[in-house]
Amino acid sequence: MLFFFTMLLLNNPASGQTDWYDPLRVDFPVIEGRFMDKKDYFRLPSELQLVVRKEVWELSKNSAGLSLGFLTDATEIQVKYTVKGNHQMPHMAATGVSGVDLFVRESKEEWNWARGVYNFGDTIQYIFRIDPNPTIEKEFKLYLPLYNEVEYLSMGVRKGHTFEFIEKNSKAPIVVYGTSIAQGACASRPAMAWTTILQQAVGMPLVNLGFSGNGLLEKELIDWISKKESSLIILDCLPNFVPGKGISDDEVRARIQYAARKLRTGNPKVPVLFTAHAGYSDQYVDQSRRDLVTKLNTILLEELDKLWEQGVHGIHHLSSQAIGLDQFDFVDGTHPTDGGMLKYAKANQNKILEVYKEKRK
Amino acid sequence: MLFFFTMLLLNNPASGQTDWYDPLRVDFPVIEGRFMDKKDYFRLPSELQLVVRKEVWELSKNSAGLSLGFLTDATEIQVKYTVKGNHQMPHMAATGVSGVDLFVRESKEEWNWARGVYNFGDTIQYIFRIDPNPTIEKEFKLYLPLYNEVEYLSMGVRKGHTFEFIEKNSKAPIVVYGTSIAQGACASRPAMAWTTILQQAVGMPLVNLGFSGNGLLEKELIDWISKKESSLIILDCLPNFVPGKGISDDEVRARIQYAARKLRTGNPKVPVLFTAHAGYSDQYVDQSRRDLVTKLNTILLEELDKLWEQGVHGIHHLSSQAIGLDQFDFVDGTHPTDGGMLKYAKANQNKILEVYKEKRK
Repeated sequence: MLFFFTMLLLNNPASGQTDWYDPLRVDFPVIEGRFMDKKDYFRLPSELQLVVRKEVWELSKNSAGLSLGFLTDATEIQVKYTVKGNHQMPHMAATGVSGVDLFVRESKEEWNWARGVYNFGDTIQYIFRIDPNPTIEKEFKLYLPLYNEVEYLSMGVRKGHTFEFIEKNSKAPIVVYGTSIAQGACASRPAMAWTTILQQAVGMPLVNLGFSGNGLLEKELIDWISKKESSLIILDCLPNFVPGKGISDDEVRARIQYAARKLRTGNPKVPVLFTAHAGYSDQYVDQSRRDLVTKLNTILLEELDKLWEQGVHGIHHLSSQAIGLDQFDFVDGTHPTDGGMLKYAKANQNKILEVYKEKRK
Repeated sequence: MLFFFTMLLLNNPASGQTDWYDPLRVDFPVIEGRFMDKKDYFRLPSELQLVVRKEVWELSKNSAGLSLGFLTDATEIQVKYTVKGNHQMPHMAATGVSGVDLFVRESKEEWNWARGVYNFGDTIQYIFRIDPNPTIEKEFKLYLPLYNEVEYLSMGVRKGHTFEFIEKNSKAPIVVYGTSIAQGACASRPAMAWTTILQQAVGMPLVNLGFSGNGLLEKELIDWISKKESSLIILDCLPNFVPGKGISDDEVRARIQYAARKLRTGNPKVPVLFTAHAGYSDQYVDQSRRDLVTKLNTILLEELDKLWEQGVHGIHHLSSQAIGLDQFDFVDGTHPTDGGMLKYAKANQNKILEVYKEKRK
């Protein structure tokens, strides 16, 4: 049925009478979910290109966590865009790697998800249909692909309908610096990444600095984050400290210490949350993986204990127990399913409430 | 990191010293999850090829819900196989469409999931590594692809290790006749389909007769199911009665009546569970979809009421409220995420417990 619909919509003869809008050709910044404004869909500013490792820079071109808002009275909204990389990964569907997600605002707090009929050709196309009830202007938010680089994107509505991009929300964001899990693997679509679920739940901007296998608590990133205005910093890098990265346990300890001190000095009022390794679903049949999780989580707690004993304030810990992933919450043993993403988001949300309560004391 | 691992394992020089085993070349039936024994991975017997519609026959070649058991003392298990269709769909990852899932039995009730390192080439390969602790024979269960046709499959262990297929469990199965959701869309891997989660939870065989867009409560299938020995029949076809299928509301009513009466006559002791349409996640922005769900669920309840009033026993109803999918439980508006699949399975499990309790009265 879906295929039938797709053909029907994509061959719509009226599509020649569509007005197209480019979010990068507007006088004000539209793209939310990053610290800088640039005429691209990257997550790091150009000046970091020569500062961070090549792998980090390349991954920062993935549009994970970026979104854009607009107002329209149209009942059919089109998005067409091109991406640079493969449309999908074996364990992550094209709708998650390269897809978009659209939400319609129903009230101040409430957003409804809108179905997109998609076509993953050389140009990716989504067509969203909204209730053709009284045509009034509504607010929309579009989330961009989690694991691909968007090259050129355009939004279309039929001629005669209003369309207006919304200036990005410039409130100090929550920053998440982490791994592939933070970047969004293996959500089925952008809004199922735990960072996006969290962003929607708390209703404030969030900057996703998840860099697949390269979220390694690196000085360059920590120094840069320390200079930015944020409201909370989540450091969720432990799952990337696997053998093969050539990083010793002592180095992991040093990076935790550096990050904690640097961020607390740079922005003394901004809480820092260190997240434990949430585990693997195959750790029951693979002792070495069970041991790795235990070791890293022990290291983290030992280092946080040192900081707490030395009176460094505003450092928080999210335990793997609080995240609570179980055997049914993993796609491939390492990356959460959509169900796992919901648990991950909920645990972070609960912890953030706790942190703010403590802060108000 | 995963890629590195893959290369390492697939180029393993020892792989030439592997013994390969074909589950279809064994003296006893190995493939579980279907009523017949055949030297293929199809779900319907050959005699149905000219009885059911072509679409149903073609979909019955997808190995959804099929599994095979074996015993081995190997700590590395390989699976290689070829499939006939596309490896993935835009909204469903290759690991779900064409992948396999392996579980190790820890105790009578407990199974642990084993990670597979995969390579989706012309031949699909999975390599599973099990704790290299005391090499003892363990029991394994492999689940086959949800949305593809397996052509040739072979299991490999290093020379010198034991390997033995287990004869299929021939207990009367639970039968699920349904749609794409029942077939497994959009689980990230075979064991995340709700039918498989349910099968594992209740620890008995289950026959998955989910036929993508073609689960239409058809006479041919109902007649065939009525002749088979089963322990419970779940009919979950409502989501396929969409406009475009050319099936009137009266015809839907007639099919519900026919199925209920035929199955209760054929096997008077076997309970029949009719499942409501669990809804769409875009039904809040699309009135027509909200209306369709409401209409179909009303039709179902009205028809069941008639049967109950006429004293037809053993007919049960699973409501959409009991399944309880919400906006976060859908991949594309229609098909559950892995989280949605867990809710679907749990609702069925709870209902089955209720049905058996009632039966014992």
